Amino acid sequence: MVSSLSCAVALQIMNYRINSNKKEGTCVELMEVIKGRRSIRQYRLDPVPDEVLQKVFEGLRWAPSWANTQCWKVIVVRDPHVKSEILGTVLESNPSHSAMAEAPILVVLCGEKAVSGCYRGKPLTAKGDWLMFDTGLAMQNFCLTAYSLGLGTVIVGFFDHKRVEEILGVPENVEVVAMTPLGYPAAAGIKTKRKEISEFAFQEKYPKEDKS
Amino acid sequence: MVSSLSCAVALQIMNYRINSNKKEGTCVELMEVIKGRRSIRQYRLDPVPDEVLQKVFEGLRWAPSWANTQCWKVIVVRDPHVKSEILGTVLESNPSHSAMAEAPILVVLCGEKAVSGCYRGKPLTAKGDWLMFDTGLAMQNFCLTAYSLGLGTVIVGFFDHKRVEEILGVPENVEVVAMTPLGYPAAAGIKTKRKEISEFAFQEKYPKEDKS
Repeated sequence: MVSSLSCAVALQIMNYRINSNKKEGTCVELMEVIKGRRSIRQYRLDPVPDEVLQKVFEGLRWAPSWANTQCWKVIVVRDPHVKSEILGTVLESNPSHSAMAEAPILVVLCGEKAVSGCYRGKPLTAKGDWLMFDTGLAMQNFCLTAYSLGLGTVIVGFFDHKRVEEILGVPENVEVVAMTPLGYPAAAGIKTKRKEISEFAFQEKYPKEDKS
Repeated sequence: MVSSLSCAVALQIMNYRINSNKKEGTCVELMEVIKGRRSIRQYRLDPVPDEVLQKVFEGLRWAPSWANTQCWKVIVVRDPHVKSEILGTVLESNPSHSAMAEAPILVVLCGEKAVSGCYRGKPLTAKGDWLMFDTGLAMQNFCLTAYSLGLGTVIVGFFDHKRVEEILGVPENVEVVAMTPLGYPAAAGIKTKRKEISEFAFQEKYPKEDKS
């Protein structure tokens, strides 16, 4: 009884915070968004209004990309049958499996091949296609904007990409990169730790002693 | 005379805006940052204070990553000799070449190999190493935070990666991904267009008619 009460209180606090962010005209501060965003693995059933979804895509839309090529494509999956098929490509042991089942929307992020990092379809650098980098830039805009609107996300990359491409009819020139459930959180995300800045930022040269 | 005056006025407006963003306690709104950020290719000589640079890394630090593996590494280059060597790996025709020479700092973003998307050093998906995706997520946090603090960035990916790795002494288990100059803008960036949301966001299935 005590624990379900504490849980209710915690949820109330979180909802209050989320709703206060959503108020029209309320400023949603960048660093608060960057630091407050968490991977959300429990979702409410409430649908995401279309105008809210459009705002999240507006955030994604303004990401930078290689020569402004904007190779990203997204598929919004709501159909329970298709969602269930996609869920079958993710291991049940994946901590995001149930989140993908719960959330009202599953967003599948794709990248058009031979565009980013390429000229006339040929890679310009030894790194080949830059679609993973550019979709990464776009996904971060998406997740930050979603959070600023009170929505949860969790980036899922460990699944059978080929199978999802078949399910969604993704053409040869495009590949599926990552997915995220999208919806209103039913519980706060876990605050995970980060390395100290001194562990990843170096001066002038790469240090000989970095063993990470 | 008229054009240099207009230019001075435009710069004044931009600096005002930048400085108003920087004021302590001023809220820097997420969507304003996402939409206002531009690639900056002209920089002032003014140095970037260490505490400001730390804030930019604080933004990068809180990016999400594959199983929170945080594969990113960054090298802050200020030494004119090293900067000049790195500049030699970029084509002079690259529109960001002079920006890299002008800005007081060059930030080189690297990724540790066989960590993101991997388990015990082996890739978990057909996409191999996910370091490009995770460094993309981190780079976007970096660029947004920099902009919110009045700093300019422009992501450069087209250069001789192997040569930059040699210059900076990057070890075998790490690779250089992208670079950006970092400093206070001397001119506003060009507002580039974006595709409409309807051109990249689809419902339920990938459309057969998408020819982009």
